[in-house]
Amino acid sequence: MVFKGVSHTADVYWDGCLLGRHYNAYTPFTFVLPEVEAGEHEIAVLVDNSFHEESALHIPNDYYSYGGIIRPAAVEEIADLFIERMAFTPLYTEVGWSGRIDVVLRNTSEERRNARLHGKLGEWDVPFAEGVIVPPDATRKVSVTVPFPQAAAWSASEPQLYPLEAQLFNDDGNRVLDDLIERVGFRTVSTEGGQLKVNGEPVVLKGFNRHEDHPLCGAAIPYPLMVHDMELMLDMGANAVRTSHYPNDERFLDLCDERGIFVWEENHARGFSLKDMQHPLFERQCEDCNREMVEAHINHPSIIIWAILNECASDTMEGREMYRKQFDQIRSMDTSRPLSFASHHRERELCFDLADIVSVNLYPLWYGEEDPYELCLQARKWADDAGGKDKPMIMSEFGADGFYGYRDPSRVKGTEERQADIIQANLEAYLPLPFLSGMLIWQFCDCRVTEADGWLLTRAGTQNSKGVVDRYRRPKLAYSVVKDYFSRRNADS
Amino acid sequence: MVFKGVSHTADVYWDGCLLGRHYNAYTPFTFVLPEVEAGEHEIAVLVDNSFHEESALHIPNDYYSYGGIIRPAAVEEIADLFIERMAFTPLYTEVGWSGRIDVVLRNTSEERRNARLHGKLGEWDVPFAEGVIVPPDATRKVSVTVPFPQAAAWSASEPQLYPLEAQLFNDDGNRVLDDLIERVGFRTVSTEGGQLKVNGEPVVLKGFNRHEDHPLCGAAIPYPLMVHDMELMLDMGANAVRTSHYPNDERFLDLCDERGIFVWEENHARGFSLKDMQHPLFERQCEDCNREMVEAHINHPSIIIWAILNECASDTMEGREMYRKQFDQIRSMDTSRPLSFASHHRERELCFDLADIVSVNLYPLWYGEEDPYELCLQARKWADDAGGKDKPMIMSEFGADGFYGYRDPSRVKGTEERQADIIQANLEAYLPLPFLSGMLIWQFCDCRVTEADGWLLTRAGTQNSKGVVDRYRRPKLAYSVVKDYFSRRNADS
Amino acid sequence: MVFKGVSHTADVYWDGCLLGRHYNAYTPFTFVLPEVEAGEHEIAVLVDNSFHEESALHIPNDYYSYGGIIRPAAVEEIADLFIERMAFTPLYTEVGWSGRIDVVLRNTSEERRNARLHGKLGEWDVPFAEGVIVPPDATRKVSVTVPFPQAAAWSASEPQLYPLEAQLFNDDGNRVLDDLIERVGFRTVSTEGGQLKVNGEPVVLKGFNRHEDHPLCGAAIPYPLMVHDMELMLDMGANAVRTSHYPNDERFLDLCDERGIFVWEENHARGFSLKDMQHPLFERQCEDCNREMVEAHINHPSIIIWAILNECASDTMEGREMYRKQFDQIRSMDTSRPLSFASHHRERELCFDLADIVSVNLYPLWYGEEDPYELCLQARKWADDAGGKDKPMIMSEFGADGFYGYRDPSRVKGTEERQADIIQANLEAYLPLPFLSGMLIWQFCDCRVTEADGWLLTRAGTQNSKGVVDRYRRPKLAYSVVKDYFSRRNADS
Amino acid sequence: MVFKGVSHTADVYWDGCLLGRHYNAYTPFTFVLPEVEAGEHEIAVLVDNSFHEESALHIPNDYYSYGGIIRPAAVEEIADLFIERMAFTPLYTEVGWSGRIDVVLRNTSEERRNARLHGKLGEWDVPFAEGVIVPPDATRKVSVTVPFPQAAAWSASEPQLYPLEAQLFNDDGNRVLDDLIERVGFRTVSTEGGQLKVNGEPVVLKGFNRHEDHPLCGAAIPYPLMVHDMELMLDMGANAVRTSHYPNDERFLDLCDERGIFVWEENHARGFSLKDMQHPLFERQCEDCNREMVEAHINHPSIIIWAILNECASDTMEGREMYRKQFDQIRSMDTSRPLSFASHHRERELCFDLADIVSVNLYPLWYGEEDPYELCLQARKWADDAGGKDKPMIMSEFGADGFYGYRDPSRVKGTEERQADIIQANLEAYLPLPFLSGMLIWQFCDCRVTEADGWLLTRAGTQNSKGVVDRYRRPKLAYSVVKDYFSRRNADS
Repeated sequence: MVFKGVSHTADVYWDGCLLGRHYNAYTPFTFVLPEVEAGEHEIAVLVDNSFHEESALHIPNDYYSYGGIIRPAAVEEIADLFIERMAFTPLYTEVGWSGRIDVVLRNTSEERRNARLHGKLGEWDVPFAEGVIVPPDATRKVSVTVPFPQAAAWSASEPQLYPLEAQLFNDDGNRVLDDLIERVGFRTVSTEGGQLKVNGEPVVLKGFNRHEDHPLCGAAIPYPLMVHDMELMLDMGANAVRTSHYPNDERFLDLCDERGIFVWEENHARGFSLKDMQHPLFERQCEDCNREMVEAHINHPSIIIWAILNECASDTMEGREMYRKQFDQIRSMDTSRPLSFASHHRERELCFDLADIVSVNLYPLWYGEEDPYELCLQARKWADDAGGKDKPMIMSEFGADGFYGYRDPSRVKGTEERQADIIQANLEAYLPLPFLSGMLIWQFCDCRVTEADGWLLTRAGTQNSKGVVDRYRRPKLAYSVVKDYFSRRNADS
Repeated sequence: MVFKGVSHTADVYWDGCLLGRHYNAYTPFTFVLPEVEAGEHEIAVLVDNSFHEESALHIPNDYYSYGGIIRPAAVEEIADLFIERMAFTPLYTEVGWSGRIDVVLRNTSEERRNARLHGKLGEWDVPFAEGVIVPPDATRKVSVTVPFPQAAAWSASEPQLYPLEAQLFNDDGNRVLDDLIERVGFRTVSTEGGQLKVNGEPVVLKGFNRHEDHPLCGAAIPYPLMVHDMELMLDMGANAVRTSHYPNDERFLDLCDERGIFVWEENHARGFSLKDMQHPLFERQCEDCNREMVEAHINHPSIIIWAILNECASDTMEGREMYRKQFDQIRSMDTSRPLSFASHHRERELCFDLADIVSVNLYPLWYGEEDPYELCLQARKWADDAGGKDKPMIMSEFGADGFYGYRDPSRVKGTEERQADIIQANLEAYLPLPFLSGMLIWQFCDCRVTEADGWLLTRAGTQNSKGVVDRYRRPKLAYSVVKDYFSRRNADS
Repeated sequence: MVFKGVSHTADVYWDGCLLGRHYNAYTPFTFVLPEVEAGEHEIAVLVDNSFHEESALHIPNDYYSYGGIIRPAAVEEIADLFIERMAFTPLYTEVGWSGRIDVVLRNTSEERRNARLHGKLGEWDVPFAEGVIVPPDATRKVSVTVPFPQAAAWSASEPQLYPLEAQLFNDDGNRVLDDLIERVGFRTVSTEGGQLKVNGEPVVLKGFNRHEDHPLCGAAIPYPLMVHDMELMLDMGANAVRTSHYPNDERFLDLCDERGIFVWEENHARGFSLKDMQHPLFERQCEDCNREMVEAHINHPSIIIWAILNECASDTMEGREMYRKQFDQIRSMDTSRPLSFASHHRERELCFDLADIVSVNLYPLWYGEEDPYELCLQARKWADDAGGKDKPMIMSEFGADGFYGYRDPSRVKGTEERQADIIQANLEAYLPLPFLSGMLIWQFCDCRVTEADGWLLTRAGTQNSKGVVDRYRRPKLAYSVVKDYFSRRNADS
Repeated sequence: MVFKGVSHTADVYWDGCLLGRHYNAYTPFTFVLPEVEAGEHEIAVLVDNSFHEESALHIPNDYYSYGGIIRPAAVEEIADLFIERMAFTPLYTEVGWSGRIDVVLRNTSEERRNARLHGKLGEWDVPFAEGVIVPPDATRKVSVTVPFPQAAAWSASEPQLYPLEAQLFNDDGNRVLDDLIERVGFRTVSTEGGQLKVNGEPVVLKGFNRHEDHPLCGAAIPYPLMVHDMELMLDMGANAVRTSHYPNDERFLDLCDERGIFVWEENHARGFSLKDMQHPLFERQCEDCNREMVEAHINHPSIIIWAILNECASDTMEGREMYRKQFDQIRSMDTSRPLSFASHHRERELCFDLADIVSVNLYPLWYGEEDPYELCLQARKWADDAGGKDKPMIMSEFGADGFYGYRDPSRVKGTEERQADIIQANLEAYLPLPFLSGMLIWQFCDCRVTEADGWLLTRAGTQNSKGVVDRYRRPKLAYSVVKDYFSRRNADS
């Protein structure tokens, strides 16, 4: 039984009996039920989206924690020995592409099990070791590194994908116990020479921060609407998306794989003060989130950056320690992607040395009257001074409110005109800067936020209205500005 | 030469020669030019609406300081002895109505002048003293108290007005030197027994805070649009308006006189911190404003409250001293109206003892989740404890954002639905409370605000969107709620 | 290979070879491919939504003919003998429920085939005749009528559904060749005594005409948005929907089955002049549409009316002949449901005698100033005089434009206020009328229309704006009016 | 007593006694009351804006006939001999500017009166004949033609205006009986060589049709809002306005005089069928309208075209006769301006020979899919063939609906995008055409229309939505397109 996302605290019952609880709306979880009898059963999911005291990551915030089963759920019948997951890591050397494949088998029975594993990547065989032994009630990882000299690379322009299939046979090889197909691609990511490189070529991310939000569907975006979002982004000439501020629905990541869109995926933690980070459950809930994110999404070639803890207390020593631990955790699971986090601490930032990419959230011309170009140069200096020297830099957020339908010749803040002006001024400033490896507009679409007083009253209509399209995906005036800048740059390069 | 309002710093030139400077958009000023030659002359007005350092009252704020000549201007030819102004104060005793009439004459010549003053109020003669002597280059006040036993009272339901005419004759009485017609009414205002009384009858103010603002005209509202505003307020059943946060165009006050709308007029100072109040020019600019306001508008019977310094530092001892001085100043000019000021300091307020009416600005259900009824009871206690005991109390501001056209079944903050809900909850709470003498919704119409960052970003679209109608005067959903409550109460009482 | 809907002309290719063409966006079609080899194949669908000359039913119209594959498509592997379809017809007699089950088998091979058919309805066996012989390259219908004395009726309040499963075995009964599961319900529909009755009880349809239209998805509404539509209709208290003006997506019909919503399903032909009806392909394309509609949807208990030819030339003798033929065609396929058509011909209507239910589209207060109550009485008389006497009557369309967001105290036509007024006046008139068996508001949601000049310019913004919700499903002011009337009536009855 | 405009039927009472009735909202009228006694009097105006049977010109139409006193009214005290009106006609010959001045005196007494007339134009004397004799109860016209060799011409770029003052003295010249000041300018208008010329220079009118309409004020636009309209038009680079479809408020004409905007003023009759024109009062009401229009507005130099009968039955011989008569009537009053009318009859037009300028209303790309360029060439041919050869031609109307706030990437009809596209295509086509002397966009601002069914249902929301700004004067997307085209052309020429 697999749940791709329940927002945000799920108690799952099987015939009235609690199987377990899962916390965090944006990561998948599974339950394995041994020896289910044929017939009708009841699966009940009690969902709680209140900001209860055991919720360290879902707090009143600049997006909405919808309640409900927001992503697909499925029930599969499996044998007591099965393939739990499979990870593919592409490698490139002088002799061409190869890939490491890690298969995790799980034996839920109380007996030791022997099995055989066959694999295939596209048309090419994957030669696993002959026989595998999985101890009772345990998992066993089987790894193999295989050259695929004829493999074509996955790239933005040619997003070549391959099915990677593992089949688990019983001991004598004539009965299939389980199988698993992942879809993978060959590409490398590196950050040499102050540049973000994919397959050794420098790339500049031009795209959006995106929330999963729709007025009729909440966070449970139907697939056709995901496709629509993707098409709007492509129409504007974007080549990248940041899954702010949580791991995304895998179907959207699939779309990114297919369309050659670079993804910055990040864990679920936005705008936490040190006090928020000292919540007794914070550390564990982050750890769970990181693990579930990386395990579930490691095979998406589109993901080229893992990130953590947007705008949290990275300007404190206590906070720094938590950043360090989380980076370590992710590196222990995946070394093939650079890590980053988005900072708004300016000269007070303490963690740039921990990350592979320096990323800053600044809103020149919105929250202040600073010049985007000057501010960006300044930010580069802050980063250089704070341990970020020679690392690629990304403007991970910038933008402005624009209320759809509010146009006024005064061009005051909040008009569509002003939003377009501000975004234009930002893009104009950033595109020529050679040290920038990315610019991600805040944000793709407007999104609902937590209703509250205090600073959330700057979110008029209980929305963050900095979308280039509104919640209904109607383009604001900024749309054509972005299209002009993103497409021009594409044409130039 | 008279200017009813120039926003906000005016340098007036006559044929290139500076006549003088006037500061403050919302009060009238005059220049007397001696011995003007016939022919063509140039009057130039240099207007500055920047927030320059000599501007203590116009600062970035929750309304917009438009630039320009925002109210009528006129040039009159006068003799060198003329009537500068005339004030009427109605009085009521056991024998009925009488009125004190104060006429200020001004002699701009260098010779002593003798003159005669004739007066008329409606059809009744006003017997001034026979001859008046005005010294050279001086003013002279002529006062008389006259019984008008047949006068009908001005009231909300029967707003009877009378022309009060003074004619100034030369010494032998056969040449008219000047005349002046004011329009006056007979009514008393008092605050006995914890109630606000007009003509001895308790009244409860039900109405709006109103800014002079229109998308096409700025603060220079054409008269037909003033009438339209008045008709919308009457349609909703309002009986009162607060000229937040400055003295209003006299034509609007005329409308209030004619339609029987009670007016709370206040000087121009909103939301000043102690630091703002310590601006070296603050005290003098307030003093000017108070004087110009009272002198210009004293004859409007509709004005039943003078107020000062909305939401300023009345919670500090330094601030208190300034409140005291300003109240003293106004009382020295007019003792016929109670004084008040609107406070948001809750239990920290220090000035309730100085005012005749206790007024509080609270926004239950908007800035916090407090219950309006409970909060109002609490506010009464705060007031009682702070020197406001036995004084009438007015809810001088309450309300909520509502963006015209933003309706959503979620009823989140910012929707028209939620605004209607919040206003309804407030009115529902306040109408039955016997100690309340007024409830003034914030606000009649949306208004433009200063564009800035900081707290003004809670004013989405560079507007204060708490209007019951939008800037174009389109009724939001709250309109019919207000109409229902204000009219019902009218029907009941 | 089955296509549930391709809009509107589909040429389907298999590995580059044309399998066939299907015309009409709103009905399903299949291709059976014999002897497909394992491996990769290409299915190409060339879709044309132009108003080409072979298109008699899709013409410029008051809705939009989107281009594309608008409904699900599937490929199934089947044997050469398979179950083509299965129809269930519930019957009620003194001894309770029974049902006739018609199974159509198809043999695509060139040999005679023997087989066995097993059936089950819920937990009850369906005893088909022992063996079935299907001649080569032919179909064979197997019918059986079975008592289900324990079956619970399907009703609006208790929409009980049962799975009806047929399994096809080979001759010796030990190999399953094919199976088919339909979901069915037990209910009768009749029109005795001038009333529309379901299970013998009179019902009054209160609901909407609905177009399949969404700004982001066109006619390809994702299932979650269908559910959302359904919930909005239920929230308003509706109990019925008319699939104007074409057969609907079966998933929406499934929702109606599940939620107990009565459905008027109609074929695809709207507003055709006699000339339009004389298009050489009109008759055949209608015939196809009728057949595909009835065959595909016959098992939906929610469908209680089949209808044809909305607002076509039923006021001419030539038109009448076509109405007659189409009614005959449908009756030949299904006698368990009454038939109707929506007429706007008033006293000129010629076909009321052919239908079981008299249905009229009138727009009092919109297209004219007639009083809804008087007009409805008049319509009853027209119907009585034209052969409709003693037949139930349905107001199949009424309504008014209302542009979302356009509110104005003037309440002129086009404002949300006026739309609410008009719908209220209509409902107020119709609800008490004893001879009415239904009232269907035009329409549920706004929909895009063909862009053109001429009469389509009355469709401002290239939309039909008579929806109670707009295209984004935002409730207009009429929403709460409808809710009030539909729910009140529910509470009363 | 003068009324500048009462909409649309006014019965004026003086102390309860009917002075007379005036019909037509858009022309001024006066009453002269002899021997009024000092004291208080009541003037009552009973206004009727219903479409009553004696109303031939105000009928349900594509604009709204607001009810009320829509323009200023005044009461003047005059002697029984007074100046009724004064007309100025500029003339240009080889020796420079001169002007004919016609003064109409009226004697309301029963005695013959002698008087003297003095005149002044700017600083120059106007030498009227020495003494004037006006018979009892009669009028007398005094004319003089005077050279003004030093006068500067009025032009679009230098709109020089002069005050023209007449003073009426009593017989011995020592008492002023009356005076009148008109403001005039020197310019000629001609139509030689197929071109419209002002002061001998060809001009191309680029501007708007404009209705006097505002959501809050109806047709009674306050002066500041007129100024605002003017500034929007100037901002877009317009040099012309057509007062469709009636004579305008003289204050707006004053603005045109001052800002150098060319005016096409037309009488009040829009879209009349032959049947409408055969209304028994039609002819007389038109005649009144024409006379009042020309007499009242003859002194505005900005008016360079008089026009009549927009889109009426000029395609019939009966209609032609009426066009002929009305042109004759206007020519009998003023020969200094060319005449025109706007036709939509294409090749069926019969009256082009009667006019000085050929004007056509066509809406390519809106009411049909014709190419604007081709259609305009075609229209030229139609005109040439129908008697319009060698006459200047004006595209007097073209445009498209655009609903403010309705933007959609589909660019369907009704979106702001499509409106902008269509206007752009029209301007692109017309600007290079050498035979065009003008292009007047339909229309400046949206306007309310008569609420009705029938063709008026193409006016969604009971508005004509073809404005480049909406009723609130908010710019639609077309605004910047127009600005671009009108300004570019200005820059080029």
